[in-house]
Amino acid sequence: MTRTDSASDDFVWPIRVYWEDTDAGGIVFYANYLKFFERARTEWLRHLGVEQHALRQETGGMFVVSATQMHYLRSAKLDDLLHIHTRVSHAGRASLVLAQSAWRDDDGQAVCLCEGEIRIGWVTAETLKPGRVPSSVLSRLSPP
Amino acid sequence: MTRTDSASDDFVWPIRVYWEDTDAGGIVFYANYLKFFERARTEWLRHLGVEQHALRQETGGMFVVSATQMHYLRSAKLDDLLHIHTRVSHAGRASLVLAQSAWRDDDGQAVCLCEGEIRIGWVTAETLKPGRVPSSVLSRLSPP
Amino acid sequence: MTRTDSASDDFVWPIRVYWEDTDAGGIVFYANYLKFFERARTEWLRHLGVEQHALRQETGGMFVVSATQMHYLRSAKLDDLLHIHTRVSHAGRASLVLAQSAWRDDDGQAVCLCEGEIRIGWVTAETLKPGRVPSSVLSRLSPP
Amino acid sequence: MTRTDSASDDFVWPIRVYWEDTDAGGIVFYANYLKFFERARTEWLRHLGVEQHALRQETGGMFVVSATQMHYLRSAKLDDLLHIHTRVSHAGRASLVLAQSAWRDDDGQAVCLCEGEIRIGWVTAETLKPGRVPSSVLSRLSPP
Repeated sequence: MTRTDSASDDFVWPIRVYWEDTDAGGIVFYANYLKFFERARTEWLRHLGVEQHALRQETGGMFVVSATQMHYLRSAKLDDLLHIHTRVSHAGRASLVLAQSAWRDDDGQAVCLCEGEIRIGWVTAETLKPGRVPSSVLSRLSPP
Repeated sequence: MTRTDSASDDFVWPIRVYWEDTDAGGIVFYANYLKFFERARTEWLRHLGVEQHALRQETGGMFVVSATQMHYLRSAKLDDLLHIHTRVSHAGRASLVLAQSAWRDDDGQAVCLCEGEIRIGWVTAETLKPGRVPSSVLSRLSPP
Repeated sequence: MTRTDSASDDFVWPIRVYWEDTDAGGIVFYANYLKFFERARTEWLRHLGVEQHALRQETGGMFVVSATQMHYLRSAKLDDLLHIHTRVSHAGRASLVLAQSAWRDDDGQAVCLCEGEIRIGWVTAETLKPGRVPSSVLSRLSPP
Repeated sequence: MTRTDSASDDFVWPIRVYWEDTDAGGIVFYANYLKFFERARTEWLRHLGVEQHALRQETGGMFVVSATQMHYLRSAKLDDLLHIHTRVSHAGRASLVLAQSAWRDDDGQAVCLCEGEIRIGWVTAETLKPGRVPSSVLSRLSPP
């Protein structure tokens, strides 16, 4: 299911809209795009060889989200197939910023439903105190 | 917000239906009643003087659900105000069984939307191995 | 991603456990298995050629869950890959009963984490009044 | 449960953190603050005399979120009691912008866990086409 879009170098992950994702407005509830984006980040990390559960066992740390900026452009409905694009827009020692967006194919044309920027930082799991992103993770983000 | 229904001795907890709880069918998504029931169990325990987060710090254990049986009778909609009834139907050393139900007032008449039986057991949080329900909890369930 | 297990004739759907599915106990929250089971039913219907969003446009009706019975045997954790098995155990004019279960591969051995029976009925979407399951759906369940 | 903070004129709504809100990191999952904020907006509208389900029946329209900006400052845990503050920062004919934040009392001192700006627009429910916020709603936002 993993695809890397050659044109844009985005990591692309498919997500199907189920009943649980929709609300009485007949559309995907706005908070659920943050779930979709988190799933896509997890799969992007896995694609880079990073398993978060194992990483925590090894390092005692984990990623947490520190800021999000989202723009909702169009609505998704039940049974829609979305593609979540993920790309690093900034990688620092203390945090990463990811550009993510949700797309749907409408009659052969890709339309953007939602786009956002997600800032994630690294913390010690026990204390939740900020720390440096492990170099084993950083080194995988930008191959030499 | 805590009320104990004098007639039935049930613990009663009010829950409002929000957008997040509904789906594209215009009604509360079936899994979300299990969220409502869990909230009501947590408030019932708190009412008995049991704070689960603190209990885990003290005992290293926590409750987990081992079985559920649910009947969905009527649908709830956005903005509905529900009342969740909770009552112990069996209290053993290894597990508790709770009878729970969701009610709505329709023109002065209480109608049952959903009812179920929830079996919860006690486990050591680290290993998830079953253990005995702490006597400090059991003693609060049935006053002498 | 769709597989039909030749031995058992179950419909099998893979589901990955993400952060959103877990709770502070470090395991999948009990209500979320009902989400997993719903996703698997939706994909099973799609596999049979039934798209629920389209079906509602055509017939004005939809499936709703009327009863569930769940047994939780083992816990799933972050990053686990589950396989949801779905099988019709009863198909009537007014309702279907599905046997569903969640499995994980532990060192080459499939272990059952959770199993349940889900009864779904057909209702008119506007009125939520029960009706007969469309014959176009029933005919797809049991090939002649 | 409704309180208006006299000092700030914010609408304040209490929210308890339950198991469903937390994740395996032991803290509230980032998307769930958007659920908390939505609940608080719904109660703020109700406080102003606006019931969204009824409003949709009357006008055929509904609010949808068009943009969010969130900053996550501290983490909330199971059993925490939060207070969500809501205030209008901009009210136009086509959209409203709300400033919202989540607070916790730590030993008598209110600490901000999370703050954000939420832009909501008005759409026709059937077509999802943007429209003007009903004047019956706008008039309630700013008493003469």
